[in-house]
Amino acid sequence: MAEKYVYMFSEGNGSMKNLLGGKGANLCEMTGLGMPVPQGFIVTTEACTLYNSSGKVLSGDIKGQIDAAMAKLEVINGKRFGDDANPLLVSVRSGARASMPGMMDTVLNLGLNDTAVEAVAKNSGNPRWAYDSYRRFIMMFSDVVIGVEKHKFERQLSKYKEEKGYKFDLDMTADDWKAVVALFKQIYKDDQGTDFPQTAKDQLFEAISAVFRSWDNPRAFVYRRMNDIPYEWGTAVNVQTMVYGNMGDTSGTGVAFSRNPATGEDALYGEYLINAQGEDVVAGVRTPSKIADLGKDMPAIYDQFAAIAKTLEKHYKDMQDMEFTIENGTLYMLQTRNGKRTAQAALKVAVDLVAEGLLTEEEAVLKVDPKQLDQLLHPVFETKALKAAKPIGKALPASPGAACGKVYFTSEDAKAAAARGEKVILVRLETSPEDIEGMFVSQGILTVKGGMTSHAAVVARGMGRCCVSGCEAIKMNEEDKSFTLGGGAYREGDVISLDGSTGNIYGEAITTIEPEIEGNFAVFMGWADKVRRLGVRTNADTPQDARRAVEFGAEGIGLVRTEHMFFDEDRIPKMRVMILCDTEAERIAALNDLLPYQKRDFIGIYEAMKELPVTIRLLDPPLHEFLPKEDEDFEKLAAMMGKTSAELKTKAQSLHELNPMMGHRGCRLAVSYPEIAVMQTRAIIEAALSVKKDKGYDIAPEIMIPLVGDIKELRFVKEIIKSTADKLIAESGVALQYHVGTMIEIPRAALLADKIAQEAEFFSFGTNDLTQMTYGLSRDDAGRILDDYIGRNIYEGDPTAKLDQDGVGRLMKWAVDKGRSARPNLKLGICGEHGGDPSSIEFCEKIGLNYVSCSPFRVPIARLAAAQAAINGKK
Amino acid sequence: MAEKYVYMFSEGNGSMKNLLGGKGANLCEMTGLGMPVPQGFIVTTEACTLYNSSGKVLSGDIKGQIDAAMAKLEVINGKRFGDDANPLLVSVRSGARASMPGMMDTVLNLGLNDTAVEAVAKNSGNPRWAYDSYRRFIMMFSDVVIGVEKHKFERQLSKYKEEKGYKFDLDMTADDWKAVVALFKQIYKDDQGTDFPQTAKDQLFEAISAVFRSWDNPRAFVYRRMNDIPYEWGTAVNVQTMVYGNMGDTSGTGVAFSRNPATGEDALYGEYLINAQGEDVVAGVRTPSKIADLGKDMPAIYDQFAAIAKTLEKHYKDMQDMEFTIENGTLYMLQTRNGKRTAQAALKVAVDLVAEGLLTEEEAVLKVDPKQLDQLLHPVFETKALKAAKPIGKALPASPGAACGKVYFTSEDAKAAAARGEKVILVRLETSPEDIEGMFVSQGILTVKGGMTSHAAVVARGMGRCCVSGCEAIKMNEEDKSFTLGGGAYREGDVISLDGSTGNIYGEAITTIEPEIEGNFAVFMGWADKVRRLGVRTNADTPQDARRAVEFGAEGIGLVRTEHMFFDEDRIPKMRVMILCDTEAERIAALNDLLPYQKRDFIGIYEAMKELPVTIRLLDPPLHEFLPKEDEDFEKLAAMMGKTSAELKTKAQSLHELNPMMGHRGCRLAVSYPEIAVMQTRAIIEAALSVKKDKGYDIAPEIMIPLVGDIKELRFVKEIIKSTADKLIAESGVALQYHVGTMIEIPRAALLADKIAQEAEFFSFGTNDLTQMTYGLSRDDAGRILDDYIGRNIYEGDPTAKLDQDGVGRLMKWAVDKGRSARPNLKLGICGEHGGDPSSIEFCEKIGLNYVSCSPFRVPIARLAAAQAAINGKK
Repeated sequence: MAEKYVYMFSEGNGSMKNLLGGKGANLCEMTGLGMPVPQGFIVTTEACTLYNSSGKVLSGDIKGQIDAAMAKLEVINGKRFGDDANPLLVSVRSGARASMPGMMDTVLNLGLNDTAVEAVAKNSGNPRWAYDSYRRFIMMFSDVVIGVEKHKFERQLSKYKEEKGYKFDLDMTADDWKAVVALFKQIYKDDQGTDFPQTAKDQLFEAISAVFRSWDNPRAFVYRRMNDIPYEWGTAVNVQTMVYGNMGDTSGTGVAFSRNPATGEDALYGEYLINAQGEDVVAGVRTPSKIADLGKDMPAIYDQFAAIAKTLEKHYKDMQDMEFTIENGTLYMLQTRNGKRTAQAALKVAVDLVAEGLLTEEEAVLKVDPKQLDQLLHPVFETKALKAAKPIGKALPASPGAACGKVYFTSEDAKAAAARGEKVILVRLETSPEDIEGMFVSQGILTVKGGMTSHAAVVARGMGRCCVSGCEAIKMNEEDKSFTLGGGAYREGDVISLDGSTGNIYGEAITTIEPEIEGNFAVFMGWADKVRRLGVRTNADTPQDARRAVEFGAEGIGLVRTEHMFFDEDRIPKMRVMILCDTEAERIAALNDLLPYQKRDFIGIYEAMKELPVTIRLLDPPLHEFLPKEDEDFEKLAAMMGKTSAELKTKAQSLHELNPMMGHRGCRLAVSYPEIAVMQTRAIIEAALSVKKDKGYDIAPEIMIPLVGDIKELRFVKEIIKSTADKLIAESGVALQYHVGTMIEIPRAALLADKIAQEAEFFSFGTNDLTQMTYGLSRDDAGRILDDYIGRNIYEGDPTAKLDQDGVGRLMKWAVDKGRSARPNLKLGICGEHGGDPSSIEFCEKIGLNYVSCSPFRVPIARLAAAQAAINGKK
Repeated sequence: MAEKYVYMFSEGNGSMKNLLGGKGANLCEMTGLGMPVPQGFIVTTEACTLYNSSGKVLSGDIKGQIDAAMAKLEVINGKRFGDDANPLLVSVRSGARASMPGMMDTVLNLGLNDTAVEAVAKNSGNPRWAYDSYRRFIMMFSDVVIGVEKHKFERQLSKYKEEKGYKFDLDMTADDWKAVVALFKQIYKDDQGTDFPQTAKDQLFEAISAVFRSWDNPRAFVYRRMNDIPYEWGTAVNVQTMVYGNMGDTSGTGVAFSRNPATGEDALYGEYLINAQGEDVVAGVRTPSKIADLGKDMPAIYDQFAAIAKTLEKHYKDMQDMEFTIENGTLYMLQTRNGKRTAQAALKVAVDLVAEGLLTEEEAVLKVDPKQLDQLLHPVFETKALKAAKPIGKALPASPGAACGKVYFTSEDAKAAAARGEKVILVRLETSPEDIEGMFVSQGILTVKGGMTSHAAVVARGMGRCCVSGCEAIKMNEEDKSFTLGGGAYREGDVISLDGSTGNIYGEAITTIEPEIEGNFAVFMGWADKVRRLGVRTNADTPQDARRAVEFGAEGIGLVRTEHMFFDEDRIPKMRVMILCDTEAERIAALNDLLPYQKRDFIGIYEAMKELPVTIRLLDPPLHEFLPKEDEDFEKLAAMMGKTSAELKTKAQSLHELNPMMGHRGCRLAVSYPEIAVMQTRAIIEAALSVKKDKGYDIAPEIMIPLVGDIKELRFVKEIIKSTADKLIAESGVALQYHVGTMIEIPRAALLADKIAQEAEFFSFGTNDLTQMTYGLSRDDAGRILDDYIGRNIYEGDPTAKLDQDGVGRLMKWAVDKGRSARPNLKLGICGEHGGDPSSIEFCEKIGLNYVSCSPFRVPIARLAAAQAAINGKK
């Protein structure tokens, strides 16, 4: 049997979104519910894919099916498409699986031509309206289907009104519109060299093809890329009988939500216009009335609409966003969909719907997009202040939240300003580990270079600092401590504002308001936690981060990056001595200097976490990352070490690597310098013993060995840890448990997970590195490559931003199965950035990990995503 | 039941090498054959492993088993170990699975002490011999078991002889030896603070422990590393009743091969000494006689030995290397093993044994080590000239063969000298792709930096040039065109010699002789080819290489690296223009300049290969590898392009990558610059059409896309290739087949092999990169890491040098299974360096690849290894 490419509204239903698009599936569903929907049919997304992959031609088969559907629609309406006497007019709209601005939207009144318009004028008794409709159709069709520039028509209309001395469209008579129709048709002819198409069928096929083509246009591209919508989805086309809100005072059109999308309050919320078409509401020429007023204007219609809204809400079990038209006193529903809402509203609606008995708790948990919770955890701009402000630039929304403060250009200056009590925005070409403290004291960070996974972006997200990155439009003058952007110059101390959720940059102060986490949040997250199977831990390197994460619901730390502790001003010189000294004895001495610092850090973290589990990773980055870059720093260090700057530089040079990501780092450092692992183990164990003695907390540190690829190297490093730890514990006379496990971030470790699990008590998937190695793609170097791949439609977006379930996922699944086969109680977690990404969390649930770990600010998101994954897993 | 750690010679047999070591298993086998073997027992390799992993203590269990074995040996010999009246004396020798110099070798006469020596003197009636034996034992035991420095004893003996006015040991009387025994015991006491051990059991346990410990000593370590012997194997210990060749003129000792190990001639070959112990033969104090003379000295013994030799040869079906002792007219066999031999001899013996009906052809194929064939394919030094020469230095034997020539320090100078007809040795700090031509015209290459997998090493092996790499002892003066090494200074034009098989460097001319491939080679390889299943192809980038590989038996080309073609003097400027130009149009113009060159190359290769398959890989390395390094070159290029040097440098800088191995290379280049793939496809197809027209060869080029990790990128590049190729073929009017496939070198491609195989007609495993990615280890940066890993016993050697069957192997097996599941006739090959490594080839046979591809000079090795793998696979 041939593929079915066209569905009547009565043939589909709400579950067919993938095939019919969101709008179309809901029109079918409303039809099925017996609601007043102008009937029509849908050309499927599969037809779109076929169209775009076969030379942009509508196949004869598809055309045939459209013809057949149109014949049925003619019967339903008792009119004929393209008829001279009683013509059927339709709208043509795109409708993808997800709502997609940037694509071809709507053509109204399709089917009109020079004879049909006469018939419509006669049949309606309203020739002014008929010619108005025809000129609208000519303009829309020419603009969105054919691509004739819209302003040509607008300019012509303005000119006509000027000549006539008219001020408003309302001044135009039937004859005026008739004259304009002739003028518009001439514009078309001048532009295209052919007459405006008079055959209704041709108009229809052209319009449907244009919708399909618009799936391929650059704006749609950009939107899909930003919203992770695969190109394969395609769009459907809705062909629907026209109804008119502009037939007089018993007609009108409006949009409304079944509840307040800003607050969640349970009351119809929306606007309408009497005697208008939908585009008039959008155009903003007339001020619409509040939906409540419809109750006075047309009480019966209002009641009917309110009842439909409630029915739809009950049917969809969610707040609805609806479009309607009233034609000569008859209500028509043109659209319904689940309404977009703020995070606050989302929580209130979810909690209220449970209270109303409409949803179970589990159903409610599925109603909130985890990513939206971000809004609740970061400062936002005051709405009024924001409306008044105009951005001076825009770059990548690297870390959410709003920030306002004085600009400073170095970490030092930022720290000094913060110490004076100033609010600070740190502006840097790009950040490096040495900027950590400066970032920490800042409200927000703005960088000229770097993407969504740059150092600035990753660290800022971890800290919960607002960050806008990669603003290449900035002209920096670092010496002068100033920059220019959007035509303005900004010097040290000038105030700017950043929106880390949109990437907007403002050259002025905008009031921010701190987020309030109110009651609904706790109730809602309680439901989520009840159903969740996956544990949620946090990645935290400081007691502050640890405490915040616990407040956000973290159940432990999945990753303490010990290297971050060494960039502190006091410590980095000792670290550098450790790296550049000549003998093991000198290195041990330098490490002994570092030990008290590291121990103090761990005590702070243990105390913050009380008895929750803490996983500490041994030193990971290549040592050259800790070395100075500036001559001045080399000289200081040389003086300290009693060497020459040249000697140190030579040594530093010898540490250079061609591919540092695949170089001397991770457990390879512990193999070369066991004394580093010894020092870190001492700090971990001594701190735990000390906290146990002082506070009575029973801590069982989890010591994690990074970059393992072979059972023997794991065994070697584990042996160092065990001999050091066991001795300390024995000497202390205090009973202390500890565990030794490994990161799984080298493909070979995943492949040999059954062997690795013989020595490792736990695995934590380091999916950042694992993804890069599995793809053979360095994120640091991927910028240009990804641009080309995305531009050429090979990748939808950065393939490393979400867990690659196909490739890396196969490896993880293998590692989970093999690991548990060798050690049934193996504890499995993930601590890459994917640990805070909802779709990745769903995958972690599927393959049966024990926990995910993410930055503190993503903990609530992870809790919710894990809950949703658990519920979806049951289905 | 308890583990059995000790075997009497009568309990074992020749198949138990893993447990009993090679020497021990053969002693058991000879015992079983009823040959005259001094009886004894073997402490197993498992006991060694237990000893070294449990604190270097002999367990009570093992000691008990040794005691029991010794009791049996006492019964066999009718003597008692440690007895005052009739003491049993034994030798203690190490014996690993493979022969291993560098380990503790031998302690003779164990069981002697102050009273036993008296009994031996009395019973033998030869007190001089008894005390001589005792002093030898004290020295050996102190030296090899306890670690007292040997020269202390030697000095003492010299002093004693001097005082006595003796010239030779023969001058010493029984009393002299008795006096020396006392002096030696004093040396022991002075050194150790205790008396020389008098209890035979203690001596034995000490000696056995010392053998086990010697498995762990640095020399053994180095040897294992060089010979790929796993640490886990351990060594066995042979404890054997002493027999004496130094009891008078009816005694003697010798070593002999059953055939000539240099030529393979079928005649006993070896030496013996009358009235001597084995160590005297080795010491070289007396000149031994040829084994043939034993027929005159002791005809009966000679006949007995010759018969035993033939029996052993028949029994082992191989040439034997034997040790024997004659004690008072009785022959004892002390050892037999398959004899080491030259490649020439190996082939002759194999061919002869088949002719003699002793071996089947398949058995003969297994008798030759594939690696040995290297000797047959490269020049070697004339034996006499080599013996007279003394190396001035030694570095890594990076590419086999011998070379002699005048040193030059730049590729230009080397080319100029070669053009003058000189023989050239190219000496470089390290080589880069720009040196290719210089390397090509040289006899050998010597580098200061770089390991076995450095650019110099890899390219030299590919070209079959001798190369010694990583000679850090060289002090280079590049400006002055000179270097110093081993105390000598060498300037441009001075003659040196290199041995690429040993790594030796000589500061003088040594005559080399070209290899001769004679009849046995062809016969033998014919047998190998008959049984071989795997195809053998070659990696070749030039017609010369292709032709040579075909001579060596290559059945096609598995990898043409197109990038090597662009480093040619004429071409590199055009390549650089292509990379640094600003527009696609300029790039296409530059590519059009390159097209004729590339096409000519392919024509040459096709013509050389006739109709054998040729796999051509599209451009792979990151573009920055082609860019100039010197200012001068930038200026030349800038002049050529009408730009400034600064502009070009900025552009070049922008191509810099942090991790180039995981950067913009492979198929990613074709995605960014489809015009490159178009040009290369044109060259490939036009060349094939041209050769088909001119020569009538029916060529079906295999176009290989590198670095694929995703089905969509493969599809994208394949589409470029197909649209280009199909058009050219259609225009030509000539029928031409071609195939499109991919490298599997990114872990993700292996993981998703079922998807990749939907688009790829063939896979070629690029195990160089696949291994590095799977290990997360960059070979360029691995030097320091590997030193530490090997030093700490984590790796036995460079884990990337052979195919990592555990990790990478799992991935390959997965890819083979998944790939074939999606495309049953998928053609599978390997073109990494592992394609020429015998153990890796065996793995390729196991997982069912269709072919291996390796450098031309490794083709015969691969043919033989593939044949052996096929035979072993049948077992």
